[in-house]
Parts: sequence; structure tokens; C-alpha cells
Amino acid sequence: MPKQSAPDKRPPDTARRSEKSRRAIYDAALALVAEVGYPRTTIEGIAARAGVGKQTIYRWWSSKADVLMEAFFDLSAQAAQDAGQQPYTIPDTGDLAADLKAVLRATVDELKDPRFEAPSRALAAEGLVDEELGRRFVTKLLEPSLQLYVDRLRAAQDAGQVRPEIDPRIALELFVSPLAQRWLQHTGPISYEYTDTLVDYALHGLAPR
Amino acid sequence: MPKQSAPDKRPPDTARRSEKSRRAIYDAALALVAEVGYPRTTIEGIAARAGVGKQTIYRWWSSKADVLMEAFFDLSAQAAQDAGQQPYTIPDTGDLAADLKAVLRATVDELKDPRFEAPSRALAAEGLVDEELGRRFVTKLLEPSLQLYVDRLRAAQDAGQVRPEIDPRIALELFVSPLAQRWLQHTGPISYEYTDTLVDYALHGLAPR
Repeated sequence: MPKQSAPDKRPPDTARRSEKSRRAIYDAALALVAEVGYPRTTIEGIAARAGVGKQTIYRWWSSKADVLMEAFFDLSAQAAQDAGQQPYTIPDTGDLAADLKAVLRATVDELKDPRFEAPSRALAAEGLVDEELGRRFVTKLLEPSLQLYVDRLRAAQDAGQVRPEIDPRIALELFVSPLAQRWLQHTGPISYEYTDTLVDYALHGLAPR
Repeated sequence: MPKQSAPDKRPPDTARRSEKSRRAIYDAALALVAEVGYPRTTIEGIAARAGVGKQTIYRWWSSKADVLMEAFFDLSAQAAQDAGQQPYTIPDTGDLAADLKAVLRATVDELKDPRFEAPSRALAAEGLVDEELGRRFVTKLLEPSLQLYVDRLRAAQDAGQVRPEIDPRIALELFVSPLAQRWLQHTGPISYEYTDTLVDYALHGLAPR
């Protein structure tokens, strides 16, 4: 989170101005990385586009990577709210297949959202060749979202719907990674029908029962 | 393939010189893209590094993308031969799990091979943001290798080892895409144990049988 003091400790006007600046900075950072790529995105460029002083950004974040990570974090939280979901949780209705299908359908929508698409690709592309950035991206953004599947699969194990010897951290990759690869590498179309199929195949297996 | 005339139509010395140049060009192209990335790799740079004239490259290929695609194609074929495998086929011993595990173990070796790692990452990263290049990469290199799994899974369906209603093109993603994502995005370690587990989960499913 920004290194600002809590809004309630400051006069309302300052808090409102800060919130407005913060949002302008996120928007500028996402737009810029989408347009010119990560290497050519600079704090100076973000500041100019957001209409704030460079020092405003440096007061809250220590690097362009930090700004971008939080801008994505914020974007994902917004997308979840727009979809009427509680961010950072996967529902447990007792029906594992239905719950996984619902969250993957919401992910399909997010991946196809133009606000998300271009900046995500730019950051992911840089993460492929800049291992340090890639690992931060994974640790801060990707892995926490994958842990939500771990939690849901563990609950399913407790309910006897997933075999007890299964490692949930590997199991989730059977439906999450195919979608990620199709989106990242354009290896195939993505749709609700596709992600529903992945869930069915993963839960029931390819071999006859 | 290069636009050269068939070697047997030319004097042996010319064919030998051409083969040597071709290999020098592939090596130079792979090294260069690994070092400076795809956008800054040029035909001129490849020619200089390979010690050939620029016209030699233009005689055989029409773009740097074409040179690189073939360099990768050649590298993969070499890797398969080094591993004692027939390139462009997945063995059918009658044991589907064993056959899939063997080919994925060979893929793990290839992904960890430094000759392959850096240029592959550079090309994949560019393919994420340059959709046209990405699609060519998929069509020419990735999809043909995925079709080998389709063939093997179809044979398994004929043998009653995979359910008849399964779509093999989606099914293969349950074990191929997790490995691809771990490698591409550094989302987790890759090992033989990991790919063996993916095959077991995919074939038998996560739900109790």
C-alpha cells in the first residue's frame, strides 16, 4: 500500500486530494506501460501523465515496479467488485465444480477487459525476461490469487470431494494454467465453455471411471 | 525451410559451405535474441555475428522472424536427437501414463537447457506483446508439437484408455500448460516429480473414484 499516513489522520480535503492523485497515478502507470512497455515507462512519465509532481510519486512508492504492482492490485479489486464478487475469496457453496467454474468465468471476463489486457501483457512480457521483476509479479500478484484456489481445494478435501493425497497447489494448475497460457500466448480461444470443460476434465480425469 | 535449392543439385563444396553458413546464422540469431531481445535483433546484426554477408541471409529467408523460427525448429530437433528420441512423435508403448511422463521429462530437460532458455524467453516475451509474431510462433513451433499429444491421446481413446467424449486438444493442456506457465512465469519449480504428478492428476482426476 502507499506509504501515506492513514487518511483519517489528515484533514478531509488533503485525503480527498491524495485519493484523486493516487488514482490518477495508477491510471497513468497502466496506460503508459501498455503503450510503451515496461522498460520505457518511467516515474517521470507517470508523473507527467498523471499531472502530479515526481515527488508525489516518490513520497508514496520507491520504484515504478511498486507503482505498477499496486495499480494492478487495485484494478483486480475493482474488477472483482464490478463482477459483484467479494475480492480475495472463492465462494464455497458446497458444489466445488460450480464454484470453480464461476470464478474462472469471472477471470475470462477480466482477461478480455481492455483496461486489463494491454498493461497485463506488457508486465507479463517483461517478467519473462527480467527474472527479478517476474518473481515480484508472481509473489505480490499471482501467487496470492492462486492461494485462494488452494484454500477452496482444501475445503473440498475436508468435504471428501477431492482425494486427500492431492497437492492443492499443483491441482489448481490443471485449470488455471491452461487458461493463462491460452491468454498469454494466443494458443487458443478462451470462453466460458472452455473453462467449464477444464474444470470437468480436472475433477473427473481423462481416463474412464 | 531455407529458400536454397536442394544441396544435391550443387557441387559438394557449395553444399558444405551453405550448411556451415546456415548453422552459423542459426547460432548467431539465437545468441543475439537472447542478448538484446527480439526488437533489437536485426538481419545486419545476425549477419555480422555469423560472419556472412547480409545478402546470404536475405537469399534464404525473408525476415528475422523467419530466421529465428527455423533456428528454434532446428534446436528442438537437435535436442530431441540428443535425448535419443525420434523428433516429432510421442512413443506409443501402450502405457499412456508412462509415454506422457517420458516426453514431459524430456521437455523439462529442454526447458532447463541454457542453449534453449534465453532465446526462447526472448521470443516468447515478444510474442506476448506482438500478437502477429506470437501467432506465428504458435502456428509454426508450438501447435505442431501440441498436435503430437493430440495424436497420442487419440490413440489412447481408441485403446479405451481415455474417455471417448474428451477433446484431446483441450485435454493435453492439463499437463502441458502447467509446465509452460511454471517455466515462463517462474511460478514454481519444475522437475520430473512435478510433471509425473501432473500426468497422474490429469488422467485420474482430482475427485475420488
